[in-house]
Amino acid sequence: MNQINRVAIVGGTHGNEFTGAYLIQKFAQFPDLITRQSFETVTLLANPNAFVAGRRYVEKDLNRCFLKQDLQDPTLNSYEELQAKSIQHTLVSNREQQADFILDLHSSTANMGLTIILVNSHPLNLKLAAYLSQINPLVRVYRCSFKSIEENPFVNSLCELGFAIEVGPIAQGLLNARLFQQTEELVYAILNYLEQFNQNGIPSTNETLILYDHLSVVDYPKQPDGKIFGMIHPELQDKDYQALNPGYPMFITFEDKTIYYEGASTVWPIFINEAAYYEKGIAMCFTQRQQINI
Amino acid sequence: MNQINRVAIVGGTHGNEFTGAYLIQKFAQFPDLITRQSFETVTLLANPNAFVAGRRYVEKDLNRCFLKQDLQDPTLNSYEELQAKSIQHTLVSNREQQADFILDLHSSTANMGLTIILVNSHPLNLKLAAYLSQINPLVRVYRCSFKSIEENPFVNSLCELGFAIEVGPIAQGLLNARLFQQTEELVYAILNYLEQFNQNGIPSTNETLILYDHLSVVDYPKQPDGKIFGMIHPELQDKDYQALNPGYPMFITFEDKTIYYEGASTVWPIFINEAAYYEKGIAMCFTQRQQINI
Repeated sequence: MNQINRVAIVGGTHGNEFTGAYLIQKFAQFPDLITRQSFETVTLLANPNAFVAGRRYVEKDLNRCFLKQDLQDPTLNSYEELQAKSIQHTLVSNREQQADFILDLHSSTANMGLTIILVNSHPLNLKLAAYLSQINPLVRVYRCSFKSIEENPFVNSLCELGFAIEVGPIAQGLLNARLFQQTEELVYAILNYLEQFNQNGIPSTNETLILYDHLSVVDYPKQPDGKIFGMIHPELQDKDYQALNPGYPMFITFEDKTIYYEGASTVWPIFINEAAYYEKGIAMCFTQRQQINI
Repeated sequence: MNQINRVAIVGGTHGNEFTGAYLIQKFAQFPDLITRQSFETVTLLANPNAFVAGRRYVEKDLNRCFLKQDLQDPTLNSYEELQAKSIQHTLVSNREQQADFILDLHSSTANMGLTIILVNSHPLNLKLAAYLSQINPLVRVYRCSFKSIEENPFVNSLCELGFAIEVGPIAQGLLNARLFQQTEELVYAILNYLEQFNQNGIPSTNETLILYDHLSVVDYPKQPDGKIFGMIHPELQDKDYQALNPGYPMFITFEDKTIYYEGASTVWPIFINEAAYYEKGIAMCFTQRQQINI
């Protein structure tokens, strides 16, 4: 890839994540903000029905509908499954409008700061992530790799270049002005970087990058009937990206008993207390912090 | 009222306000926690279908279904309208199980602290509110009076004694351990106070109470087509119960222009940026702060 011709900015993939959805509407109204000389920028409100309803999705989580086999399966026809196929057509299949870089804007109730979610280790994605984390200390880089692109169910599986941005903490269904503006600035920084890339002049950055690599997910404490009996411990709440050492508090039960982290080694939890993950059985994701050379 | 015989604790009136819903489940599992010698305590998960769905409501906001005329209207038969009638039957019509005091547990994405929402000025409600605000500095007292009980659409219209509790800030669809515990402590303080009332020994309190009286609601800045074009200003975000003076920033538009408060006198906004109120056209509620003698 020597030249990026088209960048797609996607928002409202989850209809109750307003930051991205309203940014998309702003960019659509004022396209000059995202226009750069060397490439075209398009915007996409990915799940309009869910956005109108103020819900994450109508029938099925859209950001789990992009498995290659599902996109090719003609029997899948829920609203979001059809929407995923339509998005694939718009951003991939139609050669004349094909996106070379996809930025998918999300928000989280967890204290994610400005997180970049890498789904592969393409050198340009890594360099861009390093650049962004260098110019803004709120930026964190989480890598959630898949064995193959076929196993990646996210919007970002459609394109090798690009990533999702996950900002927080913010409740679902509302706008926070400061986070809106920080996300907007991050989008501009990314577009400016890609503009420089096209002009053979990407900014020099540190040669190292702090990456948080996905390890595993952890569920809430549950009774045999599936009912939750504990919450994120107050000492862990909002501590995303901080070291969780063996013996540290992790949950507190409704009866005030503390449940400790009993793993053998330090982990770095993220997505702590994400509202949308209660139904997925995820209280947090464990990651491994590492510094890599790029 | 010389004797309170039955107290009803209601939670999950809004299905995505987990603090109350899970407290109800805890109390139902461990009834000793809410048992007091001089009265019976019952619990009610008010909107079980919405709780299972993780949504505020299924068809209609349950906490707007308690207008007297609606409860008597046999043509109203949405899930929540039927649920309201069923709750009225359980807590009011059935003389043998009639509740003398109703506590309805809510949560908010706004920085409401531990707010008591009075819907009338019954002396016992005022005294109890004064007591609670005296023992816990996080307690605030908001009074949203109705011209007549017939015009009150809330669960608390069913009973002269009692009030709603609105805790926050907390996102919808999740549990925050600290807020869960603070709400639980507040419930126990209320039950203990009522127990003392029955035994003719209510604690002496300050003879004054700071009340925030409802004035009006304020909508987001909107285009003629109804689309929002601004957000709560960062300087107003989380400033619930703080004085908003003429000329102070109130909103910031998506184009970074500040909209100032242009009223003639100071107000005290609450419910600032409550997610559930976007669809109701409410960005915040203005209140008037006053000190009253009780």
